[in-house]
Amino acid sequence: MQRLLLIGFGNVGRALARILLEQHRYPGLASLNVAVVGVTTATRGALASVAGVDLATALAEIELNGRFGPTTPGFVELDSMRAIETLDYDVLVELSTLSVANRGEPALSHVRNALTRGKDVITCNKGPLAWSYRELADLAAARGCRLLHEGTVMDGVPVFNLTRHGLRGNVVTGIEGVLNSTTNAVLSALERGETLADAVRRAQDAGIAEADPANDLLGWDAAVKLTVLANVLMDAELTPEAVAREAVTAATGVRARAALAEGLRLKALCTAEREGSLVRASVALRELAPDHPFAHLQGAGSALRISTDILGTFVLAEEAPDLNTTAYAVISDLFALAEPLS
Amino acid sequence: MQRLLLIGFGNVGRALARILLEQHRYPGLASLNVAVVGVTTATRGALASVAGVDLATALAEIELNGRFGPTTPGFVELDSMRAIETLDYDVLVELSTLSVANRGEPALSHVRNALTRGKDVITCNKGPLAWSYRELADLAAARGCRLLHEGTVMDGVPVFNLTRHGLRGNVVTGIEGVLNSTTNAVLSALERGETLADAVRRAQDAGIAEADPANDLLGWDAAVKLTVLANVLMDAELTPEAVAREAVTAATGVRARAALAEGLRLKALCTAEREGSLVRASVALRELAPDHPFAHLQGAGSALRISTDILGTFVLAEEAPDLNTTAYAVISDLFALAEPLS
Repeated sequence: MQRLLLIGFGNVGRALARILLEQHRYPGLASLNVAVVGVTTATRGALASVAGVDLATALAEIELNGRFGPTTPGFVELDSMRAIETLDYDVLVELSTLSVANRGEPALSHVRNALTRGKDVITCNKGPLAWSYRELADLAAARGCRLLHEGTVMDGVPVFNLTRHGLRGNVVTGIEGVLNSTTNAVLSALERGETLADAVRRAQDAGIAEADPANDLLGWDAAVKLTVLANVLMDAELTPEAVAREAVTAATGVRARAALAEGLRLKALCTAEREGSLVRASVALRELAPDHPFAHLQGAGSALRISTDILGTFVLAEEAPDLNTTAYAVISDLFALAEPLS
Repeated sequence: MQRLLLIGFGNVGRALARILLEQHRYPGLASLNVAVVGVTTATRGALASVAGVDLATALAEIELNGRFGPTTPGFVELDSMRAIETLDYDVLVELSTLSVANRGEPALSHVRNALTRGKDVITCNKGPLAWSYRELADLAAARGCRLLHEGTVMDGVPVFNLTRHGLRGNVVTGIEGVLNSTTNAVLSALERGETLADAVRRAQDAGIAEADPANDLLGWDAAVKLTVLANVLMDAELTPEAVAREAVTAATGVRARAALAEGLRLKALCTAEREGSLVRASVALRELAPDHPFAHLQGAGSALRISTDILGTFVLAEEAPDLNTTAYAVISDLFALAEPLS
């Protein structure tokens, strides 16, 4: 039995709760044995129960009232940090929202404090890895626990699981990717002649872009993901501020249409390369030739090309991620925690 | 120390030998600790040494004389089957050539007999898995040893490692792929207006097609790979004869050019789908729309789309495999054997 403490109960937390409630529908999940012993949120209240939170009621309560309240079974007055430091659980599942302005906080402190207690951590929040990967990885090793993060980048593709197991013996020499789905969807719309405002609205209507798309359009989200990949796969010690960024602006439409007229596709290309003992990383708009593996990436899709010293290069692509794919990333990490360390 | 017996010393075996000789050049291989205690071939002689075969001399001998001879250090009169049944080794590495006509033999018997002795097996030969996967997997489990095969399909991409670790909890519902590089290169040449004979010759000159391209053009190689994927990932109990095949013929050029004229690309598409409790598989020529992830696959590239019940779909692609990528597949499996079973 893995006893989980969930930090955050937004779209991903709720998708995870629904999968756990319908576990019997998925033959492959028969061996999964988890109980959610706590759920905390920033503004929607918290639940805790050593016997396991009633997820069906929790979901219904959020849908009906938008928050947990004193009448919700298991309701407690408990903020996330106190829960992390005091509750009895096995795995912290960090599902709160990334804050670029706060350089990954408070998720970074959540993860640090759980690891300090010797708890395994699964984070879908990229902040802790983007700003403090080395510190947290070392802390986990020192405490004999594990820090897993399949949901932080390309959640529909088991990137980190693949590189942990499947690239043994290789040195990753470079990374290239299209990692931000909002930018990709907006660039496709700009190509078709839409204005930036219309393109953003369309991406918001499709559930791809957030209410405030600035983190996406300014390249921050892509820079954070690229930092995580470079830190984990290439032993870089980057923070997102060290990644050169090129923004999508109102002027980008002209460039996207000019590219298309020449048979090229404008994409926000993330690149990390070794330069001596350092890793240099950038997010830049690039006109890609039609035979580039990223040129035809649609809508919310993302793709990653990994280059290695022995194996050469290969490409991973995710076509149409949904909330289940992110929730599955957590489940994938739960399976990994149940495996022997190697 | 892992003591290897190599069956076959063709291109892949020699690439593996070169990597092992230059192991110090690859930082990630520092922990690899292997000795080749035997090398057998069908027609080029055999070597055996409990202290480890001298790989540099073996390579030089093959390059100079085309075979091992009585003056080669470690030369023995020993056929592959006797070596498998009598030598002292830890891992059988099966690198012999696939025989469709002999339904995977003699590689199938090589693998079976090694597993029967309780030896771990790494096979790059697809035959044993295409014709007897279930029997061999059960035998390995019964004997407490392992059967690994990363080099059998898309050797540049750790497909099986990924699905073994990264898809835990998912049921694979379907597979779609472009898996045969000769056919892919030939179809690209036919599109450009080459004749089939010229297209095949060009693929042979590029080192992609074999001297006899019939297995590729008739769809057998793709059918064998698809069978392996379906058997391993979908628990199918297929053999290649059960896969519907469509051949590339002299008439295919007209169709490839007609497709291109409409903006489509003709590809040999491998498909496996569940139908009730069965898996139906086919290799068929299909006109793909330009936004299909396989449409722009170049030359020797290959690609695979995996569909699952929870995670949805994702795509793996290999762009420019070389002999090192296949040899690395063996090394990847050696690392996996050194891990605890989970």
